[in-house]
Amino acid sequence: MNLILLFETDFISKNKVRISGRRLKHIVDVHRVSDGDELEVGLLNGRIGIGRVEELTDEAVDLDVRYEREPPTPLPVTLILALPRPKVLRRVLKTVSAMGVKNIYLVNAQRVEKSYWQTPFLREDAVREQLMLGLEQARDTMLPSVEVRQRFRPFVEDELPGIIGSTIPVVADPAAAKQCPVASGQAITLAVGPEGGLIPYEIEMLLSVGFTAVSLGERVLHVEAAIPALLSRLL
Amino acid sequence: MNLILLFETDFISKNKVRISGRRLKHIVDVHRVSDGDELEVGLLNGRIGIGRVEELTDEAVDLDVRYEREPPTPLPVTLILALPRPKVLRRVLKTVSAMGVKNIYLVNAQRVEKSYWQTPFLREDAVREQLMLGLEQARDTMLPSVEVRQRFRPFVEDELPGIIGSTIPVVADPAAAKQCPVASGQAITLAVGPEGGLIPYEIEMLLSVGFTAVSLGERVLHVEAAIPALLSRLL
Repeated sequence: MNLILLFETDFISKNKVRISGRRLKHIVDVHRVSDGDELEVGLLNGRIGIGRVEELTDEAVDLDVRYEREPPTPLPVTLILALPRPKVLRRVLKTVSAMGVKNIYLVNAQRVEKSYWQTPFLREDAVREQLMLGLEQARDTMLPSVEVRQRFRPFVEDELPGIIGSTIPVVADPAAAKQCPVASGQAITLAVGPEGGLIPYEIEMLLSVGFTAVSLGERVLHVEAAIPALLSRLL
Repeated sequence: MNLILLFETDFISKNKVRISGRRLKHIVDVHRVSDGDELEVGLLNGRIGIGRVEELTDEAVDLDVRYEREPPTPLPVTLILALPRPKVLRRVLKTVSAMGVKNIYLVNAQRVEKSYWQTPFLREDAVREQLMLGLEQARDTMLPSVEVRQRFRPFVEDELPGIIGSTIPVVADPAAAKQCPVASGQAITLAVGPEGGLIPYEIEMLLSVGFTAVSLGERVLHVEAAIPALLSRLL
């Protein structure tokens, strides 16, 4: 936690918050603060600043908050991700949140195991928790939006063209002849398939709405490595 | 497992291997092969080819092997990594192996917790297992070398200059003013600190032997995301 996320409900007066639970534990165990120490804080979906420790008890810490700056610029990307297996989903949500992705669609695909859709990690509170952990890691405050689409074809045909808009649509495909471009400087819509990949029919559907298939080289990466590698290279 | 790693000890005749255990389970459960099916195989530290299923029983599968090509080119990078916490270590070893890193030094640093050095995941067989999983993921056969150095300063002063040689030495530092360069096309020696970062004294020591400090932007990434992001951007 490189930044302590604050919520409107934390405020006990105009500039003062009272924090307990997980964040208190982290502040005590990792930051090991005492009275007068300063921590980086940020209001969820708001500004970033400094929280000065005013009072620390076993139950709560009071911080005096002053805001100083805006959160970092979002990464200009929309991520279309075939639902990974649950444990990977958690880590990927945290990672993409940390990297500054603000628009995420979790979609179905032929090689997504049906059971994955039953995972409690897809519940709104569980998703939100991982996203917030990513924000705290990266010192950001702007919560990403995560949408779920369980029907691939109608999503691609009816909704995806509108999502693409004026961005460059790119699908990661280890079999593609074209190498993933470097730092295009343009907004991207990035589609990433499941372990085992998108099937040719799914790739074809994406190409038909304007996607270009790109590869990171002859090595096939796991989704957890592929996503940071793609984002870092494309943007 | 996109490639089945073979060992010299698997060979029961010149072109035939007999496989059991974890690999058999994967071949049966995931690839769901039957007689005559073909799988991608590669000899550890050797060539890549096709294994045709000759006989499948509950105990073993026999494959007829023919080699076709060399493994992919290694990534031209030496990774100097502050020892991460054990669970992260396992995943990072697999990831960097999958990405084609062949030279890895796990080093101590001020913010590496001492207890991390006791983890069983640092044992030679445990390290090797993760490296092999990475190779199987990426369809590679060349096992990376992993060296452990528990004393940072003598490592940097006495050994690191020789490791750097004619490569470009780069240390990831979220506080650096310089942005991480893109696809330099040159061999790199990349140093990555622990969670919480290298301390200024450690950064100074690296600068004194020629390193440049670079940042991936104002977001501070977890080591598991930072490494693929750095490798993908630098190389």
